[in-house]
Amino acid sequence: MTVLYNDPSDFADDQLQGFVDLYADRLRGVPGGVVSHRGPESIVAVVVGGGSGHYPAFAGLVGPGFASGAVVGNIFTSPSAAQVYSVAKAADQGRGVVLTFGNYAGDVMNFGIAADRLRREGIDTRIVLVTDDVASSDEAEQRRGIAGDFTVFKALGAAAAAGADIDEVERVGKAANAATRTFGVAFSGCTMPGAQEPLFSVPDRHMGVGLGIHGEPGIHDAPLVPARELARTLVDGILAARPALDSTRVAVIVNGLGTTKYEELFLLWNEIRPLLDKAGLVPVEPEVGELVTSLDMGGCSLTLTWLHDQLETTWRADAYAPGYRKQTSAIARLRPATFGVGNAEEKATPRPSAAGAALATWVVEGLRDAQCTLHDNEDELGRIDAVAGDGDHGRGMVRGIDAAVRATDALVDAGPGWILRTAGRAWAADAGGTSGVLWGAGLEAAGEALTDTREAYDAPAVVDAVAAFAEAIQDLGRAEAGDKTLVDALLPFRDVLQQQIADGSTSAASWAEAARTATEAARSTTTLTPKRGRARPLAEKSLGTPDAGATSFALIVGALSARMRTAL
Amino acid sequence: MTVLYNDPSDFADDQLQGFVDLYADRLRGVPGGVVSHRGPESIVAVVVGGGSGHYPAFAGLVGPGFASGAVVGNIFTSPSAAQVYSVAKAADQGRGVVLTFGNYAGDVMNFGIAADRLRREGIDTRIVLVTDDVASSDEAEQRRGIAGDFTVFKALGAAAAAGADIDEVERVGKAANAATRTFGVAFSGCTMPGAQEPLFSVPDRHMGVGLGIHGEPGIHDAPLVPARELARTLVDGILAARPALDSTRVAVIVNGLGTTKYEELFLLWNEIRPLLDKAGLVPVEPEVGELVTSLDMGGCSLTLTWLHDQLETTWRADAYAPGYRKQTSAIARLRPATFGVGNAEEKATPRPSAAGAALATWVVEGLRDAQCTLHDNEDELGRIDAVAGDGDHGRGMVRGIDAAVRATDALVDAGPGWILRTAGRAWAADAGGTSGVLWGAGLEAAGEALTDTREAYDAPAVVDAVAAFAEAIQDLGRAEAGDKTLVDALLPFRDVLQQQIADGSTSAASWAEAARTATEAARSTTTLTPKRGRARPLAEKSLGTPDAGATSFALIVGALSARMRTAL
Repeated sequence: MTVLYNDPSDFADDQLQGFVDLYADRLRGVPGGVVSHRGPESIVAVVVGGGSGHYPAFAGLVGPGFASGAVVGNIFTSPSAAQVYSVAKAADQGRGVVLTFGNYAGDVMNFGIAADRLRREGIDTRIVLVTDDVASSDEAEQRRGIAGDFTVFKALGAAAAAGADIDEVERVGKAANAATRTFGVAFSGCTMPGAQEPLFSVPDRHMGVGLGIHGEPGIHDAPLVPARELARTLVDGILAARPALDSTRVAVIVNGLGTTKYEELFLLWNEIRPLLDKAGLVPVEPEVGELVTSLDMGGCSLTLTWLHDQLETTWRADAYAPGYRKQTSAIARLRPATFGVGNAEEKATPRPSAAGAALATWVVEGLRDAQCTLHDNEDELGRIDAVAGDGDHGRGMVRGIDAAVRATDALVDAGPGWILRTAGRAWAADAGGTSGVLWGAGLEAAGEALTDTREAYDAPAVVDAVAAFAEAIQDLGRAEAGDKTLVDALLPFRDVLQQQIADGSTSAASWAEAARTATEAARSTTTLTPKRGRARPLAEKSLGTPDAGATSFALIVGALSARMRTAL
Repeated sequence: MTVLYNDPSDFADDQLQGFVDLYADRLRGVPGGVVSHRGPESIVAVVVGGGSGHYPAFAGLVGPGFASGAVVGNIFTSPSAAQVYSVAKAADQGRGVVLTFGNYAGDVMNFGIAADRLRREGIDTRIVLVTDDVASSDEAEQRRGIAGDFTVFKALGAAAAAGADIDEVERVGKAANAATRTFGVAFSGCTMPGAQEPLFSVPDRHMGVGLGIHGEPGIHDAPLVPARELARTLVDGILAARPALDSTRVAVIVNGLGTTKYEELFLLWNEIRPLLDKAGLVPVEPEVGELVTSLDMGGCSLTLTWLHDQLETTWRADAYAPGYRKQTSAIARLRPATFGVGNAEEKATPRPSAAGAALATWVVEGLRDAQCTLHDNEDELGRIDAVAGDGDHGRGMVRGIDAAVRATDALVDAGPGWILRTAGRAWAADAGGTSGVLWGAGLEAAGEALTDTREAYDAPAVVDAVAAFAEAIQDLGRAEAGDKTLVDALLPFRDVLQQQIADGSTSAASWAEAARTATEAARSTTTLTPKRGRARPLAEKSLGTPDAGATSFALIVGALSARMRTAL
């Protein structure tokens, strides 16, 4: 959804005004677009352009090593011939103008009319069309221009910045276009300013294969696949239309359309990389990010440029535009450090007593009980946490218990204390987050209190372990009763357990009674407002929902009640 | 929606692997995160961190002039103490470590535990908390850290890069945090990998005021407002919590959360700028873009840092990280060019004949008829165009006719030919796009054919004008009958008009018959598949929907039928 505007019909102009103000130290607005400030030497002017809504294309690509000017049309609309003429005229430094843009009928007409007019005035004007989208036509010259705009524009800009004459700049640009192929998919449509509905939509759990960058739907819809398969679809799609060029070295762009995030693109790159290796292609300085967007559209594309001729030089060259900056000198003097990576000290597993060895089996099974319960309740815990928090509690607890079970499964002949310490460390390392560090520290402390060498593991051992668990959590989390945290279930649990055992109940009966109390206490947190943690700023919203940490604690001790009846 | 992943629970690790591969020339992965390659001089290590999902925070901020290392937790989840320890240990260059992160309970605990462990090993370790979010608490030190992370991290990184000792680096970082305030709003929630629903949602046409960056909903919901009002909300929100510092110079960040696009942020900046001026604040090198994100969340925030002390130096300093690059030397030698901006040649309005003057009024009214029709049908034309195109046809036609009417309203004593030429030029300049350039050229040609000085404007004049209109459009667009374009309604219209007039019908009757034919012909384009223009790649989808350009042509000539009966 596009939501930031005043009058939707002024969107393109208003955003350009903000852009020009921001970068007034390096470019200026002219009727129809923007023009770069000039360097000490005159160069061939490379004027890029098209509609708005594709940032950093096109105004964000104006700067040293890239475009000299950008014509800025209305959203997804070709600029007029008058706009093209005006920007080109302002960008011209006396060495001629190359007009370059994606292959769309409106742009072809308007840039063409402007070129005629410029030529009539004696300005040597060339046109380099971008036709990289393999999905749009089987005939190379009929294809539309999408993310490959970036590669072609950069080749032109680098050649111009290097001082080449207009014949050479044009030649390099056409070579870049001939060597460039793009294939992409759409996950969701984009919404024009002022509109309530997107220009197109993709069916749920599907993707539009063969995306456009102006709100055109994909050529056809296909079910959404994992990133690994999508990478194969993209690579195969491009290789099927590879140019007849010898080079095995390729410039790469993994482009995000807007809503698709950098993390997702990095992950996709991780899958694309080995496929290129397998195809015998060597990726050269790949660019992964948002380079040619389509407002808030979800989607991505892969672009390869076969680096024949001089294209590796132009691809590697520095550039410094608002939306794309590359200055290799900034990292030229860096060297990888050699260092030993720090890890927590490891000790040999101590030998447990007979009673300890007997209890060890029980502890491992107890961890598995907790694992079952947490998996069963993962979604519900996430839902509760999302009311006023970040919704990660269920997942965090599952990651923690899974790590704990994995780590303790690997132990041989360990005692119960060692198992709990190992479980705690693994939990803290893998779960992350507040609950992860608290549960990790609590289990580690419980294990230390329990030890491996007691002659008998009777009721006092249970009391010691639970007391140590509670103390570690309070020390670290600094929460008090009533703060709406785990502590609101933990303290009543500990107190009832201690009291019941002091009164002579069995461990199993005492645990069961304490677990009932914890369940009750967790439920009562619905009336509290949080005093600590991420939920604090949203205290009001939290009323009526129990605390997720107290709830998961109650679930775990409840699940252990049954197990307690078989041991201790 | 987050859609690119393999196993959702491996998302954070998988994306980091791709990131590390991409930037292997300048950083390396270590257990728990990433560490920058080293420069020639040892510096204090600034280690940033937190959960994943905030790119470029946190791994994208590692590089010269910025962070030495980043700890990378699971999505929206604090890294574990072991991760922090591991990254800090690898980043340490013997001059101590500053750990810096947003104020969240989990991060405070985990970074705290790691700091204790590092100190026990003799590594001088400091902690700089970021607490910039004014919406999250009235007490400054209770606030959570959001986009202000960027400012504080940059201050620390710049101080370290300049060679400062650890006391000084820590001092600068704390001064930056004390001087930094952020306030933001959310437009839509973000979706965790693997989840089908966002972590929170904002009611339709509303925004969540006081956003979080971990999928927390806003503090309260408020109706969505135009950008101008939102700018005021953000500026007022920050000024109400401004720090007690003398400086009038402020570093500025307008941050996008993910789905909110750069164009929208530029537009917002255009509204924020004058409000800062009015408040007596001087913005210094404002940064507008995605700096601290929250997956695919929609939203934005404003951050101001009052530049007291050395903070202007650290803010202006160069930095070169994957997600943020500033190298002022790249633009230092640029100078604004002085040039005359080119404009189309203007001639004085020629004097029309008496018949021409009479017809002029009629032409102006005819343009207004077309304007009414296009406004009435804007949405429907957009809908038709969106089936296989970019949905901009309705808006483009409205912009064109509005510009034409505006330009011709300003004419005094012009003849009908001059009016049509002026209308055509204005249409082409403002509407952009294919239809804009075609209608512009067509009207201009029609005006030239009509001229202003005929003794009588009878049926042959109408035929001439329509023929010229059609010829210009065919010349420029190169579409043939059957290509599913405007031409499919235009040619039958022209032919029937000529035939009827040749057969002796009146202009009005001939026009009405021709307009009926055009309407019929436009409707018949439903059975065609497009051969030209943006819709071509989507030919299949277009079947069953008429061509938008043919439809708008038929609407306009239809609307003129009534007017024809009153003239000629």
